[in-house]
Amino acid sequence: MENFNIPETMKAMTLVAYDKLQLATVPVPKPGPGEVLCRIKSVAICGSDPKMIHGDYAWTNWPPYYPFIMGHEWAGQIVALGEGVNDFKVGDRVAGEAHVGCGKCDNCKKGHYTVCLNYGKDGHDGGLDMGHRHYGFYWQGANAEYNVYKTSALHIIPDNVSYDVAAMTDCAGVAFHGVEMAGVTPGGTCVVIGPGPIGLCAMQECKALGAARVIVVGRGAKLEKARELGADVCIDFEKEDPVQRVLELTNGIGADEVMECSGAADSPMKACKMARKTGKVALIATYHAGDVMIPANTVNFNELTIVGSKANPNVSEQVLHFFSTGAIQGDKLVTHTFPLEDYEKAVDIFEHKKDGSIKVVINP
Amino acid sequence: MENFNIPETMKAMTLVAYDKLQLATVPVPKPGPGEVLCRIKSVAICGSDPKMIHGDYAWTNWPPYYPFIMGHEWAGQIVALGEGVNDFKVGDRVAGEAHVGCGKCDNCKKGHYTVCLNYGKDGHDGGLDMGHRHYGFYWQGANAEYNVYKTSALHIIPDNVSYDVAAMTDCAGVAFHGVEMAGVTPGGTCVVIGPGPIGLCAMQECKALGAARVIVVGRGAKLEKARELGADVCIDFEKEDPVQRVLELTNGIGADEVMECSGAADSPMKACKMARKTGKVALIATYHAGDVMIPANTVNFNELTIVGSKANPNVSEQVLHFFSTGAIQGDKLVTHTFPLEDYEKAVDIFEHKKDGSIKVVINP
Amino acid sequence: MENFNIPETMKAMTLVAYDKLQLATVPVPKPGPGEVLCRIKSVAICGSDPKMIHGDYAWTNWPPYYPFIMGHEWAGQIVALGEGVNDFKVGDRVAGEAHVGCGKCDNCKKGHYTVCLNYGKDGHDGGLDMGHRHYGFYWQGANAEYNVYKTSALHIIPDNVSYDVAAMTDCAGVAFHGVEMAGVTPGGTCVVIGPGPIGLCAMQECKALGAARVIVVGRGAKLEKARELGADVCIDFEKEDPVQRVLELTNGIGADEVMECSGAADSPMKACKMARKTGKVALIATYHAGDVMIPANTVNFNELTIVGSKANPNVSEQVLHFFSTGAIQGDKLVTHTFPLEDYEKAVDIFEHKKDGSIKVVINP
Amino acid sequence: MENFNIPETMKAMTLVAYDKLQLATVPVPKPGPGEVLCRIKSVAICGSDPKMIHGDYAWTNWPPYYPFIMGHEWAGQIVALGEGVNDFKVGDRVAGEAHVGCGKCDNCKKGHYTVCLNYGKDGHDGGLDMGHRHYGFYWQGANAEYNVYKTSALHIIPDNVSYDVAAMTDCAGVAFHGVEMAGVTPGGTCVVIGPGPIGLCAMQECKALGAARVIVVGRGAKLEKARELGADVCIDFEKEDPVQRVLELTNGIGADEVMECSGAADSPMKACKMARKTGKVALIATYHAGDVMIPANTVNFNELTIVGSKANPNVSEQVLHFFSTGAIQGDKLVTHTFPLEDYEKAVDIFEHKKDGSIKVVINP
Repeated sequence: MENFNIPETMKAMTLVAYDKLQLATVPVPKPGPGEVLCRIKSVAICGSDPKMIHGDYAWTNWPPYYPFIMGHEWAGQIVALGEGVNDFKVGDRVAGEAHVGCGKCDNCKKGHYTVCLNYGKDGHDGGLDMGHRHYGFYWQGANAEYNVYKTSALHIIPDNVSYDVAAMTDCAGVAFHGVEMAGVTPGGTCVVIGPGPIGLCAMQECKALGAARVIVVGRGAKLEKARELGADVCIDFEKEDPVQRVLELTNGIGADEVMECSGAADSPMKACKMARKTGKVALIATYHAGDVMIPANTVNFNELTIVGSKANPNVSEQVLHFFSTGAIQGDKLVTHTFPLEDYEKAVDIFEHKKDGSIKVVINP
Repeated sequence: MENFNIPETMKAMTLVAYDKLQLATVPVPKPGPGEVLCRIKSVAICGSDPKMIHGDYAWTNWPPYYPFIMGHEWAGQIVALGEGVNDFKVGDRVAGEAHVGCGKCDNCKKGHYTVCLNYGKDGHDGGLDMGHRHYGFYWQGANAEYNVYKTSALHIIPDNVSYDVAAMTDCAGVAFHGVEMAGVTPGGTCVVIGPGPIGLCAMQECKALGAARVIVVGRGAKLEKARELGADVCIDFEKEDPVQRVLELTNGIGADEVMECSGAADSPMKACKMARKTGKVALIATYHAGDVMIPANTVNFNELTIVGSKANPNVSEQVLHFFSTGAIQGDKLVTHTFPLEDYEKAVDIFEHKKDGSIKVVINP
Repeated sequence: MENFNIPETMKAMTLVAYDKLQLATVPVPKPGPGEVLCRIKSVAICGSDPKMIHGDYAWTNWPPYYPFIMGHEWAGQIVALGEGVNDFKVGDRVAGEAHVGCGKCDNCKKGHYTVCLNYGKDGHDGGLDMGHRHYGFYWQGANAEYNVYKTSALHIIPDNVSYDVAAMTDCAGVAFHGVEMAGVTPGGTCVVIGPGPIGLCAMQECKALGAARVIVVGRGAKLEKARELGADVCIDFEKEDPVQRVLELTNGIGADEVMECSGAADSPMKACKMARKTGKVALIATYHAGDVMIPANTVNFNELTIVGSKANPNVSEQVLHFFSTGAIQGDKLVTHTFPLEDYEKAVDIFEHKKDGSIKVVINP
Repeated sequence: MENFNIPETMKAMTLVAYDKLQLATVPVPKPGPGEVLCRIKSVAICGSDPKMIHGDYAWTNWPPYYPFIMGHEWAGQIVALGEGVNDFKVGDRVAGEAHVGCGKCDNCKKGHYTVCLNYGKDGHDGGLDMGHRHYGFYWQGANAEYNVYKTSALHIIPDNVSYDVAAMTDCAGVAFHGVEMAGVTPGGTCVVIGPGPIGLCAMQECKALGAARVIVVGRGAKLEKARELGADVCIDFEKEDPVQRVLELTNGIGADEVMECSGAADSPMKACKMARKTGKVALIATYHAGDVMIPANTVNFNELTIVGSKANPNVSEQVLHFFSTGAIQGDKLVTHTFPLEDYEKAVDIFEHKKDGSIKVVINP
């Protein structure tokens, strides 16, 4: 077993108020029972990160306190074990999940640990600590040199997968969970709306799960990336009506599944209208609009199923396999990397899609 | 085998224009190959019937021509067999389904015959006859002394079930299909919004499938009927906030399933808000509003599933069993019966909920 | 909060060798972090208990050491909390599950905690303690005045359910899990083979989940009990051929589901032969024979599904609800109660079905 | 529309007694209502064909009469339409399914048309004709220049798929249905036992549906073919213990799914022993032994699911897509072709695996 020198303090990028980030020196946390200390190697910026910085998640109480260390899509190396840890060892290369459920509520016991009924009851506010953790949202995250994690949040990275790619395990996992909830008809047609990082993962996953044809709806550099990654048909929604085009491509029948990854207010409506009778629509995004319209009679007359997919329970091993086999081409998604000091610049490039950016990764 | 005298002509209630009904004498139809002629004994008025009379279904092309014989929730007796019929015999008491699929499209072959991909291709307009029938909507219905049906639309009525109750097989079946699509958590809590005939069937079906507690949201006589039929909790939405109350009743967790049977534009929103994390919402209604709002972020954060239920594939035998065992108390739902001549009066009483009416049945 | 005087030592019934039981005085265990101490009020004897006593489970290493305190179907009261427990309080009336998974393996994270991949890794042998517990089989059980449990094994007992009935939560839960795995066709026909305690629970659960007709195959007093509890048809397999009879009762089609609860070597074969095309067969028993025959071509030609059901994940709340509503008539199953001192006598009466015994409960 | 000259008589290979085949000249059949006449281009020999010739299917009454024209895996061209056919046109290149259900029974209406409850009721014996057809088993098959089919048995062949490959639609479909019934864990490990034509299709389908690793158990030329087609691991059961090896390859956990395609009497037992806890075992074969042993306690303790897969409902379009995309490499499976006259020789080469034969196709 390797031996790591662990310093007393570390650099961390902290949010101290909405739109106010500050590089700070803070104590390196100590792993408690069942926890490990990880040296963070890569943190991918998620679409939710700029939103949290701007205060768009005030309604859900993210972040819960200041200064707050964000960052939830990460990979790193275990450098110290807390008491009783015997499922991992020092030196292990690991990718992290953002969610750890309480393990005792009805949802956690059934495997739905990302919708834990004790969400937020983590004791950070002096209240009950039921064991729930939501790293980078409700609990200290990965935008730092080190962080402490419960081992149930961790997965071993296959040897041929880099830390930068492994940091997308959470991102690809969110997409994967939505795809699994919708299901993929083998030999069928899937549409992915919104070729951001989630959508680009979703389109590759639809292929990997047996779709014969994947149609991507988007525009600009991201739509080009979809083409590069193997989309069978790319529809530029600025140039043609995606509903009309999908119906044409499917002889008027519609798509077997539609993965709505754009978060645009009018996309759920379109998604329902381009789905076939008995089709499935997965909402794999958060909506700035909050409430959105759906065509209720179409949903009924065509017996559609709409599923909401929040996060990524029980899919990390699978996603890591797909990174390893190349079914998800992770390296083509990482377009930029920066040191922790340049976090604000990195967010700016990511958020404003500058310089052809798809996925931007921090190396603390 | 009994022998029936079949006249050449019969009385039929015909729609000749929106809001214009006319009692007419028309030829008794002849059963073709695979069809039977039925003496109609009971036809229940469905919530869709007054809408069709008023022209609310112009968007879906109901009725497709004039004069049109409506009526799709019916029971009767087989009086003549077409060529090649060997699965039923003259004298059989039968309940009908409204839908017969083409039997050849992808959806029909998979069992989803109420969302047949050849919907409307029945040759009535001189186009292709792919074999699809939608009795009472697209094809001649049961508001007459006789009608012809394909045998796949028919089910034997158990001896202890009356024609008047059996005429609700379609109604209870639509409810049942929605309940099955949402699923019922055994020992769990279901909410039914809208205690009309569909909702009152749904609440009994939720019980029959293992719900420990059924909460009904409504008002007036229909809510009272829900109480009489065994609803565990009745919420009058004019007196209290149903979302708030359901959350209180479930310790803040929400209902396992919500069956939205009201068709009110704001009900899907409420349904989503009273469902638990991982909860299911079934839309078992048509919406005058067409498009409705849903709380997209709640759907995602709580991983809700919304299912649209149009009709009643593959449930008629089950519904007839439940009528027979009393699990669905059909006789308590039939509040009024009228002869065919009084159809307009019957529709008026049903549509405007006069005289405590729940289900109004015509005996042609 | 009540205050309980907890003694230093307690009475416990210990297995010291195959077929050798000994009443002993042992220390009252102390609850560790996340654990509670319970005063055991009722322990039901399970069909597996006499088998374990006789050494029939040597192949699966039960018990793992001597002296061993068995007993896994239990109910009691919480009398002390370990460190960090905040989901229960002293004084709570609770029913127990036998299984607590490690919470970290792939199966546990997916909700399948009774088939934990770290089964047996509980550290009792000085090996790794991955957190798995199997109370009464691999870890100290309930045949004593007190025992310590992780809180994830516990469920609050509804006020109108007695400790004696609540002790059957595990038993009814095992049946329920099998029934859920097989599924119940609402309005359909289920067969239950073997009306022992598991089978008698299964038959009531099939009813509660919507079966229109439940057929029970057995003999003697247990078959009479099935009749008393509402079986629609009882088949005495000593007097008639159950396969033949089920086919007759279903017009040659067969049963929708067959719950095999007998453990007899030839029952899986019969179960397959009385199931309909597309039918389900649940094996909810252990088989002394180990290997059993199935009719492979019937399984294929009729597209049967055979499911093995080991235990009771995620069903305790539901079972307790059914006890509370009377859907499972627990009090009619408990035929005998004894103090801990009479454990051997109690086992004898239970195992040899003396005195019309169905379920025999110990009150330590 | 092309015009085809249709002769009055045709060549057909007939079975006139067990093990007695005879080339005959018989009338070209006429398509009835809803039927089409097809010029048969390719018929693949199925593993069931030599068994039927030898009389191994006497128990299931195949063939039902003599002389009988066998052959059920076929592709050809439509040359004439019966009355009322409007879903296909003369000249269409089509692949056939062996099964057409009655369309009216409970199973057919639910989509399970290959386990039609009116199986065998096709009127060939002067009894009721409920509409069921099982071409090549119970009803005249494709070993002839022409045959008549109901259109619901037909699927358009993509342009880039040859008749020889399309003739395997039924074979690949049987495999696919079994694979779908078992399910494929994306990113998981599947084992396929028995790399005959069914197994070789199954292994490619497991890959196409997302398995990260496919392990094939077999021997000789067929195992080599599996390797050529992309099997990740090949286990020669004559050289090593497949159960042991699968457990080693999966860190002692076992395979997510096992597709048993060998029909060997001891394979179901092995399949169960190499499956993980919660694993699935599909039996996609017929068993000369009839009854086979399964490890009942392993099935229960590991909560296995065993599914029997008979045929290929609702998968033909998907299989044809996979042929078209190359996900199933059909052309690598067809090793030999013969004219109809050489049928006996072709069966001999196929049955006795001579000359490296995998799939042998007849071109009538």
